[in-house]
Amino acid sequence: MILGIDPGLANTGWALVDRHGSRLLVHDCGTFTTSPRTDHVERLKSLFDSVGDVLSTGGVTHAAIESWFVHPVSKSAMGMAEARGALLVAVASHGVDVTEYPPTEIKLAVTGSGRADKAQMRTMVTRLTGSRPATDHAADAIAAAICHLHRAPLRAAIRQAQ
Amino acid sequence: MILGIDPGLANTGWALVDRHGSRLLVHDCGTFTTSPRTDHVERLKSLFDSVGDVLSTGGVTHAAIESWFVHPVSKSAMGMAEARGALLVAVASHGVDVTEYPPTEIKLAVTGSGRADKAQMRTMVTRLTGSRPATDHAADAIAAAICHLHRAPLRAAIRQAQ
Repeated sequence: MILGIDPGLANTGWALVDRHGSRLLVHDCGTFTTSPRTDHVERLKSLFDSVGDVLSTGGVTHAAIESWFVHPVSKSAMGMAEARGALLVAVASHGVDVTEYPPTEIKLAVTGSGRADKAQMRTMVTRLTGSRPATDHAADAIAAAICHLHRAPLRAAIRQAQ
Repeated sequence: MILGIDPGLANTGWALVDRHGSRLLVHDCGTFTTSPRTDHVERLKSLFDSVGDVLSTGGVTHAAIESWFVHPVSKSAMGMAEARGALLVAVASHGVDVTEYPPTEIKLAVTGSGRADKAQMRTMVTRLTGSRPATDHAADAIAAAICHLHRAPLRAAIRQAQ
């Protein structure tokens, strides 16, 4: 089972996704939220603990997370990077390997276009899995997991061929 | 005892600093280094584990870390933010409170000027503590701890007066 993560300080989407034959199944998904009124370190710790709780339920074989891309520097970009740091060490602490995928690769894997918008992403996530995630963050987390399920066999084949 | 941290993905400075009367004492300090050739998540996990090892020795009552400041977006700025996220949750996981100080506040507390350069910082750190840290990162970590030792009583007094 793949843990997909859409990292963010205020909202982190997460999803547990599996493949059964040609079917994609979302076992569970949701959003961890933290308030800007909460102490900064508490927010990071809360994300660290929350993803730890999901991993403690067991069955996660791999994690997939959106990687960052260069954009204008902003408080939210740095907050996102700090959240990513906290989430990545939480996953690694549970002995689970994690692969980072650029946003364009995730969009391409799910919709066939690297420039898909949020609405297109949600539509395709629902078509592919039958699930209707409550937030865009959870939909993006499902998309990250789907991307890994599509790309991992290809990446393994490329590594073997090299 | 205060744990000072100068966060960075490639180099994280750390220092254990205490006050005995009017004397400042550096119990230990050093630099955690990670190689760009190592897997990205492994690097974050290595920082998380290393600061955890220092905290496990016991006696740390508070941590002080340099906060980020807005500068041109770059891979290193985002890597620093991810490292900060990993380090902050490591400290919080050990139940230790951490205060974030802007670089200018740390420089001001140690040298009397918010614009001190690295050489001035090292000179003042050595004068104040008698210690000669091996790297600028370790010197900056000592400076963060000194800043906390200077500022914390003032902050507490301001809170009480409010």
